[in-house]
Amino acid sequence: MLKNLILIFNLLICSIFLSAQTENDAFVLKKIYSTALAESNAYNWLYHLSENIGGRIAGSPNGAKAENYTQKILDSLTMNHTFRQACTTTFWNRKTESKVHMWMQNNVSIELASTSLGNTVGTNNKLIRAEVIEVQSLDELIIKGEENIKGKIVFFNRPMDPTLINSFHAYGGAVDQRAFGASRASKYGAVAVLVRSMTNKLDNVPHTGSSIYEEGVNKIPSIAISTIAANLLSESLKNNPSLQISLSNDNETIEGKTNYNIIGEIKGSEFPDEIIVIGGHLDSWDIGGGAHDDGAGCVQSMAVIEILNKMNYQPKRTIRCVLFANEENGLAGGTEYARLSKLNGEKHIAGLESDSGGFSPRGFSADGADTYFDQRFKKVSNWFTLMEAYGVTLSKGGSGADISPLKDQGPLLFGLKPDTNRYFDFHHTADDHIEAVNKRELNMGSAAMTALVYLIDQYGI
Amino acid sequence: MLKNLILIFNLLICSIFLSAQTENDAFVLKKIYSTALAESNAYNWLYHLSENIGGRIAGSPNGAKAENYTQKILDSLTMNHTFRQACTTTFWNRKTESKVHMWMQNNVSIELASTSLGNTVGTNNKLIRAEVIEVQSLDELIIKGEENIKGKIVFFNRPMDPTLINSFHAYGGAVDQRAFGASRASKYGAVAVLVRSMTNKLDNVPHTGSSIYEEGVNKIPSIAISTIAANLLSESLKNNPSLQISLSNDNETIEGKTNYNIIGEIKGSEFPDEIIVIGGHLDSWDIGGGAHDDGAGCVQSMAVIEILNKMNYQPKRTIRCVLFANEENGLAGGTEYARLSKLNGEKHIAGLESDSGGFSPRGFSADGADTYFDQRFKKVSNWFTLMEAYGVTLSKGGSGADISPLKDQGPLLFGLKPDTNRYFDFHHTADDHIEAVNKRELNMGSAAMTALVYLIDQYGI
Repeated sequence: MLKNLILIFNLLICSIFLSAQTENDAFVLKKIYSTALAESNAYNWLYHLSENIGGRIAGSPNGAKAENYTQKILDSLTMNHTFRQACTTTFWNRKTESKVHMWMQNNVSIELASTSLGNTVGTNNKLIRAEVIEVQSLDELIIKGEENIKGKIVFFNRPMDPTLINSFHAYGGAVDQRAFGASRASKYGAVAVLVRSMTNKLDNVPHTGSSIYEEGVNKIPSIAISTIAANLLSESLKNNPSLQISLSNDNETIEGKTNYNIIGEIKGSEFPDEIIVIGGHLDSWDIGGGAHDDGAGCVQSMAVIEILNKMNYQPKRTIRCVLFANEENGLAGGTEYARLSKLNGEKHIAGLESDSGGFSPRGFSADGADTYFDQRFKKVSNWFTLMEAYGVTLSKGGSGADISPLKDQGPLLFGLKPDTNRYFDFHHTADDHIEAVNKRELNMGSAAMTALVYLIDQYGI
Repeated sequence: MLKNLILIFNLLICSIFLSAQTENDAFVLKKIYSTALAESNAYNWLYHLSENIGGRIAGSPNGAKAENYTQKILDSLTMNHTFRQACTTTFWNRKTESKVHMWMQNNVSIELASTSLGNTVGTNNKLIRAEVIEVQSLDELIIKGEENIKGKIVFFNRPMDPTLINSFHAYGGAVDQRAFGASRASKYGAVAVLVRSMTNKLDNVPHTGSSIYEEGVNKIPSIAISTIAANLLSESLKNNPSLQISLSNDNETIEGKTNYNIIGEIKGSEFPDEIIVIGGHLDSWDIGGGAHDDGAGCVQSMAVIEILNKMNYQPKRTIRCVLFANEENGLAGGTEYARLSKLNGEKHIAGLESDSGGFSPRGFSADGADTYFDQRFKKVSNWFTLMEAYGVTLSKGGSGADISPLKDQGPLLFGLKPDTNRYFDFHHTADDHIEAVNKRELNMGSAAMTALVYLIDQYGI
């Protein structure tokens, strides 16, 4: 009887304690959101990064400016220390933007809105002029074969699927054309490729992005055209299959540049060896301001530190903010970060990346390598009743390119998942500037990230 | 034993049937979303409504154009019939926009970005010039009293609370200044009022909206100024409490205009007397294009019909699309619709309004008058597992101004609830144009509405 009473008493104390704890967490989360929405400087930092500095592809002078600027901000926040990790990158330099003309009858030409794809070779400003063959997929090259492709420009025109709810899935379903189109078409003797821009939007804005030459292929120029240009070209080819395209551009690739992961950390008071890493990537394509991709993720990651500081929160675990180098065309930063972590025997318990734009947050996805994943996922899921008021959920799925090399070291990895409807209106374009980012939406993302970091810090993984 | 076997058999059949039904519903919902995202004309309709027609306040020539245009669209969709319901409205006409100047020392003046609030009297273009008293609330007028207010311009400067997650709550917490500021200040002898614009955004864009003169008050001009102007005025008053404001404008109010609710319906094949009404309001403030408020809700409501038609769906119940007149400054359309419904003994089982902007849908709120509300809410809640894949949830809360007069007739009323972060960047401003609306977000809203209408039609309320 006494035993039972003690048990009941203990359960009672425990449940009072738990409910007090939940109440306290709810209070802290509310404070996090209020601070993010009313006091964060994230939007101002993003303004500077995307407008005063601008596009900052790895190895470029702007890349170094962005490193210095963000380290200065991290220095200004109350951090235990900031530091940088060097990594070797390749500078792909767009010397002269592409010009693409479609030649109609009577030698009349129409310019198609275009942009050279990242890493592509140029024509040294010389004109390439050839007939065009339109295909819908890499596999279609096999069917068409060398007899139909040799000497021609291959035009990849499979659109992103507008009916997919998550536009990243639509992107994933089309981007092989951009990544491998030039490599594969080259094998059949193509002289260049044109690729329909990766967007659901019908407009005249071309989208750049990484193009990859596979080992040993003959490198041919790879150029994106706007969706309006792609539709026009496709229609024109129906009327006149032998029409010609002329194109030119000039690019150079300079090896052996140095970029840096920019890092700031607050040492944990109780478990300093348990590291929670948060980040985004500092590099961005050259033609825009890199506001959504991924200036937003960088300033949100810095804002997590800013918000915790403004709340005078001393974390139990070490929180490290990392602005990764070279995500867009090499992943040298993320790879080097994971290599050094392993080398130094660091223990990352969690990673959180924001690299899906500064839009209204809908949730987080979680990923992890080890056998305890389901158990850990369940533990973290339980926290999310606290996030209901903020419309933020948890699901299983990929995290982020820069933190994914850490996966085999055991941390639970998270990706911030904002609303995806607008992302590919701006992704890798000259329109990815501050006007495309809504301040409240950006701050909501910072708040959601800070809330998750707080809960991980409180309860571990 | 046999009885038990029969029971088990029945349960089995029932559960197989239910799961087949659920599977079928999931298939239909997928088809609804695909149709909305790939085929809907809603964005094109909205373009015409907000750009070629433009602002369309009740009683204005544009109001009539919008009625004709949308009825033509409804006629073009496969409807059983379209019709219109007349209602009497008042045309508030902004003849000359407000000019507000802040007078500094040495007779130097700065113009403050401003717009006359709807329904306000004008100054007949004559200058009113007076000192200013800043207050934070209607109640503060009581404290300040006639001795501090008489002969002055009252400046209401309480901002929307940026820390509230739902920006409509922040709007609700500040809008009494705009609605009743002039009425209340007038009682203490104020000569005019300036009101801080209803937005969380710090910019130079003034927001109009309804201002209401209470019975018997001396009508004084009521003008909104931008948030930047409000901050500047407030700062300037700290340095120079006796600074003066001059203002002028010219407006007229013309009674006895006729507007119409524009209505199209598909008769139900099984339960034609059970009406599901969907709608938005056709009128909009004059200074913008009324793209989000509420062109979006109108075209989404028409798109519900369009999508069902494209799917060759024959509803069991009657689905009625109503574009309501005069929501912004009178609610004559919604009031008349409910009056006629009662008069004609119509049975509305459900109403659904979209009037919170064409942003990414997050869910629906549900409201209802009668004692069965909880039971019905639970029934509808059960459907929402089907909506999880689309990020759409159900909660309790208000529906929409135009359908709310139906409440005492018993229907379950729903409001589409999109993400609220950007709404008050555009609400009632010259910026509420097509560029502010994202096509995918708009179509996602149409799809969510169609999905809910489909489920109501299948299972009743």
